[in-house]
Amino acid sequence: MQPDTLSHTFAALADPTRRAILSRLLAGPASVGELAAPFDISLPAVSRHLRVLSDAGLIARQKDAQWRRCSLAAQPLREAADWIEHYRPFWEQSFDRLDAHLARRTGRVAKHKPSPPPKRRRQAPKPKEDT
Amino acid sequence: MQPDTLSHTFAALADPTRRAILSRLLAGPASVGELAAPFDISLPAVSRHLRVLSDAGLIARQKDAQWRRCSLAAQPLREAADWIEHYRPFWEQSFDRLDAHLARRTGRVAKHKPSPPPKRRRQAPKPKEDT
Repeated sequence: MQPDTLSHTFAALADPTRRAILSRLLAGPASVGELAAPFDISLPAVSRHLRVLSDAGLIARQKDAQWRRCSLAAQPLREAADWIEHYRPFWEQSFDRLDAHLARRTGRVAKHKPSPPPKRRRQAPKPKEDT
Repeated sequence: MQPDTLSHTFAALADPTRRAILSRLLAGPASVGELAAPFDISLPAVSRHLRVLSDAGLIARQKDAQWRRCSLAAQPLREAADWIEHYRPFWEQSFDRLDAHLARRTGRVAKHKPSPPPKRRRQAPKPKEDT
């Protein structure tokens, strides 16, 4: 069964080497050799990663004389971003809640642990002066 | 070897049932039974999906009397969105290039098949009202 496009995209992104290859391609098209250079893995292993990226539509491969050059393809990343964007209100709300929670905690801590001057005053209580 | 967080997140998102579960959780926390209801798969299969989502930190599971309720957790999705956002300039540029290419093509076609009014309007769309 052919997986849906988004599953294909996310599966292809679920590997640090493949993400590093995409990151390199942001700078422009590159040959397989250029893409393999930073990695301590075999050329066939890099080729397998490129095939996964290519099958997911994340890269395009052009035959240019005897070279095969790879370039970034935008559409699947855009679809993945669109999918994740639906959750933005949720995580923004979560961080707002976290901020509110921390603010409340900070307020509570201030009640228990007053800042130094009052504490010093508490340690050395003011003698009562009955004038 | 423990995969990095992003790989973990993307691998968990690479399944339509798991994405549908996350989408359901946008509406609020739910029990395993509630999450399983829309799917034509067994409860153990749903539980396996929930474990993948939980291992990736995409959901949190609270024990609430005899119920286990699941809720959405924001941080991994936020990190995935941050990663994808780096590529936004690329795909926006790509679509600008595509627009320019289509505009050129439209211009070329217009020379052969003159039906100017609708096409010209598409090339120079009316600015939207800002109010």
